Amino acid sequence: MEEKVIKAIQDDYPDDFAYCYGCGRMNDDGHHFRTGWHGDRTITIYTPLPEHTALPGFVYGGIMASLIDCHGTGSAALALHRKNGNEVGDGSEPPRFVTGSLKVDFVKPTPHGTPLQALGTVAEIHPKKWRVNTEVYANGELCARGEVIAVVMPDTFLKK
Amino acid sequence: MEEKVIKAIQDDYPDDFAYCYGCGRMNDDGHHFRTGWHGDRTITIYTPLPEHTALPGFVYGGIMASLIDCHGTGSAALALHRKNGNEVGDGSEPPRFVTGSLKVDFVKPTPHGTPLQALGTVAEIHPKKWRVNTEVYANGELCARGEVIAVVMPDTFLKK
Repeated sequence: MEEKVIKAIQDDYPDDFAYCYGCGRMNDDGHHFRTGWHGDRTITIYTPLPEHTALPGFVYGGIMASLIDCHGTGSAALALHRKNGNEVGDGSEPPRFVTGSLKVDFVKPTPHGTPLQALGTVAEIHPKKWRVNTEVYANGELCARGEVIAVVMPDTFLKK
Repeated sequence: MEEKVIKAIQDDYPDDFAYCYGCGRMNDDGHHFRTGWHGDRTITIYTPLPEHTALPGFVYGGIMASLIDCHGTGSAALALHRKNGNEVGDGSEPPRFVTGSLKVDFVKPTPHGTPLQALGTVAEIHPKKWRVNTEVYANGELCARGEVIAVVMPDTFLKK
């Protein structure tokens, strides 16, 4: 499996949408999750930091949830961008999504110290609402399943 | 509403269970969530750091999920500890829980720069499984609802 996402939707977000702690390229202290296409699925790869432990040796669940969250909104943005006739890197501005709901099932303890691969399947369920089902793997083993309902960003999120 | 949790279950976790990035008192880089009783409900109070933004002015969803996650396992530990006849600070070791599943519904954008208050309701659904329903408030307004299924820590989490 590829080890780096080459063309990520987050690289094309407008600057004022690039301060997300999870996936904003302009948030100096954030995780910098990057999400791209992987065949018909979407992928985000992330190696947790040493401090991101639950118990020693295992990844903190909140990091898994964060990965699934931003992977979800990024995947929805990739899918709607493509539906609109655009692709990452073509100079067009991608649509913006926020998270309506997030669900994570922890399948097994996630080993720390290895890259995590989030693989997503995206489905439109409403013109402004997409469902992203994600599997998170470590060393090829399924560790968590996630579901995000991503919603086209409403006006309530406009800068105050 | 109280502004600090006085007696937190995390203060009594054994050292090898105190490195959680969310709530471990010995994880220098973590969030240090602390969960205690608030009448018959449980409470965790946390003020996100400046970098914990979704869009500027709003709290990152992964931080909300992390808060709900550790508040959930902490609340379950509080409840089983009490069921076993013990209380925080009495010198007894609390039970240890891990997260089986986590669900977050984002009700409205969460304003940044103010303390978040997670309030939990705990119910036993199996001798080793507890459900914690949580509401997260900012400035007295409900911003998110969460549900955690917390499971008594299985042997697979024992130190490798």
